[in-house]
Amino acid sequence: MKRIPAILFTLSFAVVLFSAASVQAKDPLPSWNEGKVKQSLIHFVDEVTKKGGTHYVPPSERIATFDNDGTLWVEYPMYTQVLFAFERVKKLAPQHPEWKTEQPFKALLAGDMKTVGASGMKGLMKIILATHSGMTATEFEKEAGDFLRNTNQPKIKRPYIEAIYQPQLELLQYLRANEFKTFIVSGGGIAFMRPVTEQAYGIPPEQVVGSSVVTKFQVKDGKPELIRMPKINFVDDKAGKPVGIYEHIGRRPILAFGNADADMQMIEYTKGGGGLRLGLFVHHTDAKREYAYDRKSHVGKLDKALDLADKNDWIIVDMKKDWKVIFPFEMK
Amino acid sequence: MKRIPAILFTLSFAVVLFSAASVQAKDPLPSWNEGKVKQSLIHFVDEVTKKGGTHYVPPSERIATFDNDGTLWVEYPMYTQVLFAFERVKKLAPQHPEWKTEQPFKALLAGDMKTVGASGMKGLMKIILATHSGMTATEFEKEAGDFLRNTNQPKIKRPYIEAIYQPQLELLQYLRANEFKTFIVSGGGIAFMRPVTEQAYGIPPEQVVGSSVVTKFQVKDGKPELIRMPKINFVDDKAGKPVGIYEHIGRRPILAFGNADADMQMIEYTKGGGGLRLGLFVHHTDAKREYAYDRKSHVGKLDKALDLADKNDWIIVDMKKDWKVIFPFEMK
Repeated sequence: MKRIPAILFTLSFAVVLFSAASVQAKDPLPSWNEGKVKQSLIHFVDEVTKKGGTHYVPPSERIATFDNDGTLWVEYPMYTQVLFAFERVKKLAPQHPEWKTEQPFKALLAGDMKTVGASGMKGLMKIILATHSGMTATEFEKEAGDFLRNTNQPKIKRPYIEAIYQPQLELLQYLRANEFKTFIVSGGGIAFMRPVTEQAYGIPPEQVVGSSVVTKFQVKDGKPELIRMPKINFVDDKAGKPVGIYEHIGRRPILAFGNADADMQMIEYTKGGGGLRLGLFVHHTDAKREYAYDRKSHVGKLDKALDLADKNDWIIVDMKKDWKVIFPFEMK
Repeated sequence: MKRIPAILFTLSFAVVLFSAASVQAKDPLPSWNEGKVKQSLIHFVDEVTKKGGTHYVPPSERIATFDNDGTLWVEYPMYTQVLFAFERVKKLAPQHPEWKTEQPFKALLAGDMKTVGASGMKGLMKIILATHSGMTATEFEKEAGDFLRNTNQPKIKRPYIEAIYQPQLELLQYLRANEFKTFIVSGGGIAFMRPVTEQAYGIPPEQVVGSSVVTKFQVKDGKPELIRMPKINFVDDKAGKPVGIYEHIGRRPILAFGNADADMQMIEYTKGGGGLRLGLFVHHTDAKREYAYDRKSHVGKLDKALDLADKNDWIIVDMKKDWKVIFPFEMK
C-alpha cells in the first residue's frame, strides 16, 4: 500500500504536465488568422484570468455580450426576423381577409416589395406586430424554431441556424472555458432567437437579451398561458442595449462584440466600466465568402463606429483578413 | 506498468463507493424536520434527476424560482424595501425643501405613520419613486447594499442580510448540487436585491427577476452611465411574475416557491407545464422564532392560496413544524 501514493503522484504529475502541454499547444481560436485582433483577444483573456495580476477579474464578473444579427449570424441581405415575418404574413393571410386591402400587407402579398419598403419603419412594425402576437409563448417558440431550422439562407443554401460564424463559436467557447458567462444582447426579438440559441451557440435562453412585445398571463380553460400582445414592450437597440444589459444581467460587461453603429452604446457602456475592457466590431468585408457592406448599408450600418474606432480603442475585425473560416459547415 | 491500471481501477472503485456512501449518509436538508414536506422535496429532486426515469428533466430545464420577501428573507412587520425608502426620505430631506409641505413626505418626516399609511398605495409609490430614482445605477447599488448590510432587523437584531432562512439556503444549495439553476422572482425591486443576492443566497444578479423603474442610458462628461428615472417600468408581482419569468428566463420553471397569494400565478404557471412540478408556499406560523401571519396580514397575505392548496396540490410549508432552524446565525 505504501507504494500506491507514489505511483499516483507520478501519474497525476504526468497528467498535469500532459494537460498543460496540450492546452498550450492547442490553438483556442483556430478559425481566426494570426494577427493583431487574435492577439488582442488572447491577451485580454490571459490578463483578466491571471490571478494576482493587475487586470484580474473574478469569474462572476466575467460577462461578455454579443450582438446577434451580423455578429453571430448572417443578417444580409435582410434581417432573418423580417423574412420570418414576411413568411408568416403569407401563412396567416387566409385568416386575415382585411389584409387584401390593408397596406403594407396587400403589397407584401402581391410581392410588391417596393411598396413594402416605402411603408418604412412604420409599415415594418405593423408587419412585425401582426405576425409576432396573438398566440401563446409556446406557439410562437415553435414557429420561430421551425423557421430557423428549416428555411435556407439564400447565399449559403443552408438553414439559417447554420448561417452562423465559426470564429465566433470558437470565441464563445474560449471565453466560457475561461469562466466567462456569454450573453446575446440583440435588437432582434428575444423570443425569436431563444428557440435556437442553445443549439446554435451554446447560449441558454436565460442568457439572451432582446426586443420584446408585451405579454399577458391568463388562465384559459384551466390552462395557465402567456399570450403575446400586439404592442412593443422593449426595444433592445442603440441606447436600449445598455438598459437591456442592466435589466437582465445587472452587471457591466467586460467584453462586448457588435458589428454596427447600433452597437456603439453597448460598447461605450462596456468600456466605460474602468479596468481592462474589450470592445469589438465585425466589419463585413468579404463579398466572396459572405457579404461586404458598411457605411451605406440598409442593414447593419457601420459608419460612425468606423470613424471613432481608433480614438476609442475599439477593435475592428476585418472578416476577410481575420477569419480563416466563416461557417461551421466549412469545417466538415 | 501492467499492474498500474488494476491498482487504479481498484482505487477508483473504492473512491466511487465511498462518495456514494457519503452522499447517501449526508442529509442535504438538515434544517428541515423530517416529514411529508421534506420527503416531497427529496422525492422530487430524485425523480427529475433520475436518468431514464419517467420524470427525468435535463439539467438545462431544471429551473427553480423563489419569491424573496417572506420566502427567502424576513418581510414582517414591513417589507425591507419600504423601510429603506423611508430611511432615504429622511436622508434626502435637506435636498427637498418641498417635502416640508408635500404629503406623504411631510407626515413621514414628522413620524406621523398614520397619515403615511392613509396615503395608501399611491402615497407609497410616491415615496418609492422619489427615493429610487434620480441617481446612477452604480450609486443606487451602493445605497441599497449598504442599507441591507448595516441596518438591523428589529426582532432578530442582526442586519437584514442575515434575516434570511437557513432551510431555504440549504434547499437552494441542494437544488444547485443537482444541476438546477436557481432564480429569485420577486415583487421587490430588482436593483434593491441584486447588491446582496450573491452573498446572501449564492444567486448572481443575472438570476434575479424583480420590479423595476425606467432606466436611461446617457453619456455625461464622457462617462457612460445608466440613470434611474421616477417612473415604473415593470411590476413583477401576481400575474406579472409569469411574465417576468418569460422575459428574463424564457423557460417555465419546474419548481416554484412563494409565501403569499401574490405568488399564486407563478406557481400556477409552473405547475401548468405538465410533468412532475413542485409548487410550495411558506406559511409563517412561528410567532416565537419569527412571526405568525397569514389571512389578514398587511404584508405577505396568504389567504386564497391556503384554501386552494389541497385542490391544486400546492405544498404548504409550516414554518413552526417543518423548520428545525430559522436563521443561519443559529447554526454557529
